[in-house]
Amino acid sequence: MMPLDLPSLHARLLASAPLVQCITNTVVQQFSANVLLAAGAAPAMIDHEADSAQFAGIADALLINLGTASNHQLLAADAAISVATEIGKPWVLDPVSVGVVDFRTLKIRQAAAARPTVVRGNASEVAALAGAGAGGRGVDSTDEVDAVLPAVIRLAQATGGVVAVSGVRDAVVAVQGAHVQIARIGGGHALMPRVVGTGCALGALVAAYLAAGRALGAVPLAGDFAATVAAHAHFAMAAGVAGARAAGPGSFQVAFVDALHALNAGDLARADVQLETRAL
Amino acid sequence: MMPLDLPSLHARLLASAPLVQCITNTVVQQFSANVLLAAGAAPAMIDHEADSAQFAGIADALLINLGTASNHQLLAADAAISVATEIGKPWVLDPVSVGVVDFRTLKIRQAAAARPTVVRGNASEVAALAGAGAGGRGVDSTDEVDAVLPAVIRLAQATGGVVAVSGVRDAVVAVQGAHVQIARIGGGHALMPRVVGTGCALGALVAAYLAAGRALGAVPLAGDFAATVAAHAHFAMAAGVAGARAAGPGSFQVAFVDALHALNAGDLARADVQLETRAL
Amino acid sequence: MMPLDLPSLHARLLASAPLVQCITNTVVQQFSANVLLAAGAAPAMIDHEADSAQFAGIADALLINLGTASNHQLLAADAAISVATEIGKPWVLDPVSVGVVDFRTLKIRQAAAARPTVVRGNASEVAALAGAGAGGRGVDSTDEVDAVLPAVIRLAQATGGVVAVSGVRDAVVAVQGAHVQIARIGGGHALMPRVVGTGCALGALVAAYLAAGRALGAVPLAGDFAATVAAHAHFAMAAGVAGARAAGPGSFQVAFVDALHALNAGDLARADVQLETRAL
Repeated sequence: MMPLDLPSLHARLLASAPLVQCITNTVVQQFSANVLLAAGAAPAMIDHEADSAQFAGIADALLINLGTASNHQLLAADAAISVATEIGKPWVLDPVSVGVVDFRTLKIRQAAAARPTVVRGNASEVAALAGAGAGGRGVDSTDEVDAVLPAVIRLAQATGGVVAVSGVRDAVVAVQGAHVQIARIGGGHALMPRVVGTGCALGALVAAYLAAGRALGAVPLAGDFAATVAAHAHFAMAAGVAGARAAGPGSFQVAFVDALHALNAGDLARADVQLETRAL
Repeated sequence: MMPLDLPSLHARLLASAPLVQCITNTVVQQFSANVLLAAGAAPAMIDHEADSAQFAGIADALLINLGTASNHQLLAADAAISVATEIGKPWVLDPVSVGVVDFRTLKIRQAAAARPTVVRGNASEVAALAGAGAGGRGVDSTDEVDAVLPAVIRLAQATGGVVAVSGVRDAVVAVQGAHVQIARIGGGHALMPRVVGTGCALGALVAAYLAAGRALGAVPLAGDFAATVAAHAHFAMAAGVAGARAAGPGSFQVAFVDALHALNAGDLARADVQLETRAL
Repeated sequence: MMPLDLPSLHARLLASAPLVQCITNTVVQQFSANVLLAAGAAPAMIDHEADSAQFAGIADALLINLGTASNHQLLAADAAISVATEIGKPWVLDPVSVGVVDFRTLKIRQAAAARPTVVRGNASEVAALAGAGAGGRGVDSTDEVDAVLPAVIRLAQATGGVVAVSGVRDAVVAVQGAHVQIARIGGGHALMPRVVGTGCALGALVAAYLAAGRALGAVPLAGDFAATVAAHAHFAMAAGVAGARAAGPGSFQVAFVDALHALNAGDLARADVQLETRAL
């Protein structure tokens, strides 16, 4: 496996300021937008069913997170996913709390069936979406990343795209033919799960990096894999910087947004990323 | 009256990380979730009408705040309240802006008729809900806590639960037989009303402490009274710490979240709480 | 043209704490409320269609921002605008992303046809609303303020009110008879567009200053022009203070809220405001 060129992806994100349509939950809209802006992307939370399809044709990437979706936002998500799928625009599904309650689980499964470019969740969510595990108690993860790796690989086969799992050490997985590619990203900080929406905002940043990768001309699966790793590395490095400065979760959140912005493109070359290729 | 064992409630909250279902207004969802996370609880803002009843059976406590409720969220609140009532799960009603506009007032009165475990509001709101006072101009309080104490007691009799009033010195009230128990909690900081959602987030923390109290095996009214006092004491102590560090409402909010997280369980023994028992 | 008495407007805002009804997008509700509170005003995000008309009769000013409007919020906006228009209450329209997608554009044009007291947007939005320009890619502005000045003037003629354009140097425009009044406000900071909702929150502050101006007995157009300039000057001065303290967009946002609160009424006398009167 070739090393991933994360600095080029970051540089491209900064140069292109990809426009990310976020159909996401109202708890994290502000934080997700600020994360995108700090990292150099441009957010747009256009989530009305009458406008979402048209805007999906304008945006560079799409994030779907049904965490507090009303029926209106569910219609908007359906429409945007259809457009993204049709025109080959990259999109991310964040399956918040899938497996916890039935209606939401149904809607997230329907979205996953549309084969998202990337699924990003915590271990409980990814396991539940793959048909294993109970889905935890909501947004917190109760399974560990390694324990759910078989489910992650199964899900990656089912969607044909990338699957990312957040944990103490994140994992990004893609299945190409008879091989599984796995990247493990370290860094981060223990205060991260004490700030609401860090996972949700990471999903938005993955969408931004997918757009940057496509702009670099990367081929879909390999390029999307690299872009997803870059987003996780950017997040983890910023969290490490923020954790060293923070006195608690409030100041961590502030320092984290500062650190996302301060990171130079070249810095991603120093990210803690381990690559592995396995036979299926 | 026996002294309240606030440190044990705090320790139990930290040990059990109660899952709080928040059906709350979109202005304060992020802040409320961050307050819960900082204090050691787990938030879940599941507010779709098709999922809220099921999730009310999973969560450890419920918060209802109809501050920006759409018709969908109103349906979700009705369903969750029904489940909580039926299975005896503790729930908090925050009557934001009751008495200010008619439709909202009707909906909040309907929720209050379901006998919430705790009602928490400012003086204007509690007075309006008890049938006295005009309800202020929105979220700010124009009555003082002492002036509305008769209305608070009347409301506590009507609901059979605890009623808490936020002000310069908060009051927590419960009526047991022929006696009224009153706790007054000092501390806090003048910048608190300059940050949106501090009252709303306190309602969420009360729900978390109610769950902790129930987990300790406390009897409903006395235990819920102690839990409500503990939440107010935790909040007030953190606000005092934050106020000493803040340069304005922006840095106050950040320091407040840090302080909620930094508070050790034993610290609540030093809270400024005065207890009083009166004949009805 | 007489110099504008900005300190008196600020002092009046602090003395009267105007109640601002914000029907605004869910991304920026928290930040907008915190900006209003920090500056001395009182926010109320009452946006249910059954309550919005009644509350529009109670509030001192109204902000309409359809950035994430559901059908319910659109109905609420229509009702509130009707009441504000009928009783002569000042209101602000923030045309977020007008011209980008069709349904939203239609709804914003309908709102603009009701002749808002002030329209506040970025250059792309104001140009699109005036019928020139493409509307940008969402919330970011791609036109410069000077380039759109002819469109701004045309829009001010059409609404009969004030039009404000945010940019590196903001412009506030009003047409009185055969003359155009233009104020240009400098200051601000380069990090401002890296924080979501700064423009949206400025719209809310304009509404608060409009109420303060009316309370001072100012005549509608001239008084509203001065009030709009005062809001922009307050914002720009606070941004300058915050920029000097910030390490990035996260700490900028915190310092900005602190600075909005710390500004003394007399400080606005030192604002960087240039006035110009032109023949139409």
